Amino acid sequence: MRPSLSLLLATGLLLAAAPGQAQVRKKAKTKASTAAPAAAPQAAAAPVSDSVALRKIFDEALLRGESYDNLRYLTGNIGARLSGSPQAQMAVEWGKATMEKAKFDRVYLQEVMVPHWVRGSKERGEIVGNKDKGIKVPVCALGGSVGTGGKLKAGVVEVHSFDELKNLPDAAVKGKFVFFNRPFNDALIEPGAAYGGAVEQRALGAAEAAKRGAVAALVRSMTSARDDNPHTGTMRPATIPGAALSTNAADQLSQLLKANPDLQFELELECVTLPDEKSYNVVGEIRGSKYPNEIITVGGHLDSWDLAQGAHDDGTGCVQSMEALRLLRATGFRPERTLRAVLFMNEENGARGGTEYARLAAENKETHVAAIESDGGGFTPRGFTLEADAATLAKVAKWAPLFRPYHADEITAGHGGTDIGPLKEAVHPKALIGYKCDSQRYFDIHHTAADTFDKVNRRELELGGASMAALIYLLSKYGL
Amino acid sequence: MRPSLSLLLATGLLLAAAPGQAQVRKKAKTKASTAAPAAAPQAAAAPVSDSVALRKIFDEALLRGESYDNLRYLTGNIGARLSGSPQAQMAVEWGKATMEKAKFDRVYLQEVMVPHWVRGSKERGEIVGNKDKGIKVPVCALGGSVGTGGKLKAGVVEVHSFDELKNLPDAAVKGKFVFFNRPFNDALIEPGAAYGGAVEQRALGAAEAAKRGAVAALVRSMTSARDDNPHTGTMRPATIPGAALSTNAADQLSQLLKANPDLQFELELECVTLPDEKSYNVVGEIRGSKYPNEIITVGGHLDSWDLAQGAHDDGTGCVQSMEALRLLRATGFRPERTLRAVLFMNEENGARGGTEYARLAAENKETHVAAIESDGGGFTPRGFTLEADAATLAKVAKWAPLFRPYHADEITAGHGGTDIGPLKEAVHPKALIGYKCDSQRYFDIHHTAADTFDKVNRRELELGGASMAALIYLLSKYGL
Repeated sequence: MRPSLSLLLATGLLLAAAPGQAQVRKKAKTKASTAAPAAAPQAAAAPVSDSVALRKIFDEALLRGESYDNLRYLTGNIGARLSGSPQAQMAVEWGKATMEKAKFDRVYLQEVMVPHWVRGSKERGEIVGNKDKGIKVPVCALGGSVGTGGKLKAGVVEVHSFDELKNLPDAAVKGKFVFFNRPFNDALIEPGAAYGGAVEQRALGAAEAAKRGAVAALVRSMTSARDDNPHTGTMRPATIPGAALSTNAADQLSQLLKANPDLQFELELECVTLPDEKSYNVVGEIRGSKYPNEIITVGGHLDSWDLAQGAHDDGTGCVQSMEALRLLRATGFRPERTLRAVLFMNEENGARGGTEYARLAAENKETHVAAIESDGGGFTPRGFTLEADAATLAKVAKWAPLFRPYHADEITAGHGGTDIGPLKEAVHPKALIGYKCDSQRYFDIHHTAADTFDKVNRRELELGGASMAALIYLLSKYGL
Repeated sequence: MRPSLSLLLATGLLLAAAPGQAQVRKKAKTKASTAAPAAAPQAAAAPVSDSVALRKIFDEALLRGESYDNLRYLTGNIGARLSGSPQAQMAVEWGKATMEKAKFDRVYLQEVMVPHWVRGSKERGEIVGNKDKGIKVPVCALGGSVGTGGKLKAGVVEVHSFDELKNLPDAAVKGKFVFFNRPFNDALIEPGAAYGGAVEQRALGAAEAAKRGAVAALVRSMTSARDDNPHTGTMRPATIPGAALSTNAADQLSQLLKANPDLQFELELECVTLPDEKSYNVVGEIRGSKYPNEIITVGGHLDSWDLAQGAHDDGTGCVQSMEALRLLRATGFRPERTLRAVLFMNEENGARGGTEYARLAAENKETHVAAIESDGGGFTPRGFTLEADAATLAKVAKWAPLFRPYHADEITAGHGGTDIGPLKEAVHPKALIGYKCDSQRYFDIHHTAADTFDKVNRRELELGGASMAALIYLLSKYGL
């Protein structure tokens, strides 16, 4: 791409750029960009229109956003932070300090007991054929798995569904590894739907295989990518181990099984579940000026899987949630309703934090207007998905034109979020809202060693926090 | 993110996944995904609806797409391919062979003379202060620059606009480096608009500085990112050299200049312009069944800058253009109008290929319905931008609902493309159409050493080719 004159003219910015840039350089405290659709000067006392308010939020995020630097710290200085780990505790302290620094009205912790599963130092998988030399393949224990208690060596039976497993004779399963190898349906446009169509293998594979007398479950990694990264993730507790194979390893094992159905697999996992540990949700609050008892929650989860840095899952949701409140404050917005940024603990393997947050909300007889969760990565915004009745959905969808300049205007029915889910029964908020971003790359890195800071783009991340702040602005101003 | 039951239920795929997967495994020749909005079985002889036809195109792209492997070859086995280089010639031969393998009705080359600029082996920039030890900084020559003829050492004057340069007294400029340091306006939502607002510095900086007696132009790299990658790109021929500084280096130089306005900069570039070379556009054609004389062009540019592999700029546009025609053929579509995939030569520093394509079209009195260009990277689709009259734009925009399931439904007025641009005056097509994708990451890598294959996501790339094929399907079927 080169600078054609037609591009310069088409964007209309050849001449308009200079004043905008001057403002950037001056670091004016609040400034509307040259592209603001309705950023014409306003009389000082006149109330700003919603479109101008949103433009201010996005300007603040893009010019002075803090999410990216916060995420750099969380991922780089703390890193992986599975529930019960010392790093999870460091993350709690970091979250609290970050919110205190942002001068929210109130910052506090909610105590919650969480599972404490530890991977251990040894993880080894090997395909053992008739020949002497085995083929080492990338494996990782699934979260919650028991260890193998030394080397576990057995034959392998490949299946693609629980029905297929059910129809196998006992002799074909007993004493073997059950290898769940159903791939993502790549034809689905939403990778989350492909995940939803495959993940039962990871979640329930070991439990189902155990019922049939298998020695362990091997599960194809939850991704469309073909690579050497095994993807961990939680599984329902079972008496036998569960491990993920990278997709390349799964393809290789499947191919070798066709040539030699009698080949064996050797697995060694040292993972173990320790006693529950004390941990915390981190909560920061800005008190509503008009309806302080009506609460709007925005959150992500602070815990992460242990293989990488928990960048897109879900460091991004944490820093965006804190940033959303900071953006509103920085742009001079005084919320009518009470806003809460919540860093939930233990989403990945127990959802204890979300459950406790909802339990306390009910116990304290709180009124919750809406809750927003960001747990699909820190990619370019698309919009929001709502669990709400038709009238509420219609009301929120009417705001779509305000989000159009930011490409965040897809407002549809859909999943809210795992952490905010328990609020539904507990306090009946009008809407549970999932922040929706472009997720085509998400399952390349999800739950793997590749979920690192360098995969996050600063602008995509900050645009997401701004989109969430913009929705909170409207929810606070107009209610539901 | 973990598999909540509510997610599984929300996606509605817990039970629906198995049959879809079975189809995937069987590699059925053409199959509609389980998510197809209108993929109900049709009577064999009934004409398929447009939505079903589009769904088939996307299925083919996502399940059996060839763009990604083609791009892997182009970037990995040929790599950088600046006009006039031996690699550009290899790319021509690869493009022709790839189209022949795809069995297009006709594959041919269009000869065109192109510039041949060579970077040379030495590129060195150093900030020299009062102290003995200089600070080496990342620089690269701008495309078309003259060399420095050995070491060039001089003072530096920083400006942010041509107006600022104009207002400087001669003594402040003469014999110095002019350092153009206006950053991107990060508040703009479209990075392309920020590029449009800054790139005159790169394009015209050296020419403007030369008029004032400067020794060379130093230009801040064209990106929002803060990193150590200098961004090359074309500049208007000038009597003095032009070089890009990485944004970190530009920030550092600016800061040091504030402390010491008398510091000096030392630049060494060995670049040189050689005589023009013979090169080619590569053209592949599928002949229209009903209106063979009405042509629809789809293209990207085959040349790339010399610092990396030309992956997103514009290997992706090349493989998508070829893939668009392959997808239509693979899904059994017999086009009414003639389709041409064109790999244009020399977009980056001359646009000679696009100019020659248009000249030949006029000479041959061809009728061109529309031309589509993909030159904004291979990222997730958003839609299309049109240079067309209001009625034509309205007609195309009416197709938006067909693109909605694929998130490619933003159909607006906007830039077509550099290579297809010359068609406008030459043969007056009804529409010049730019393929629009999510571009937040584009200028992190654009024209740098980081524009490599690993930055491209398979699904994002294939979705783009499918979007282009879908538009061609509609253009061919309905005309404009």
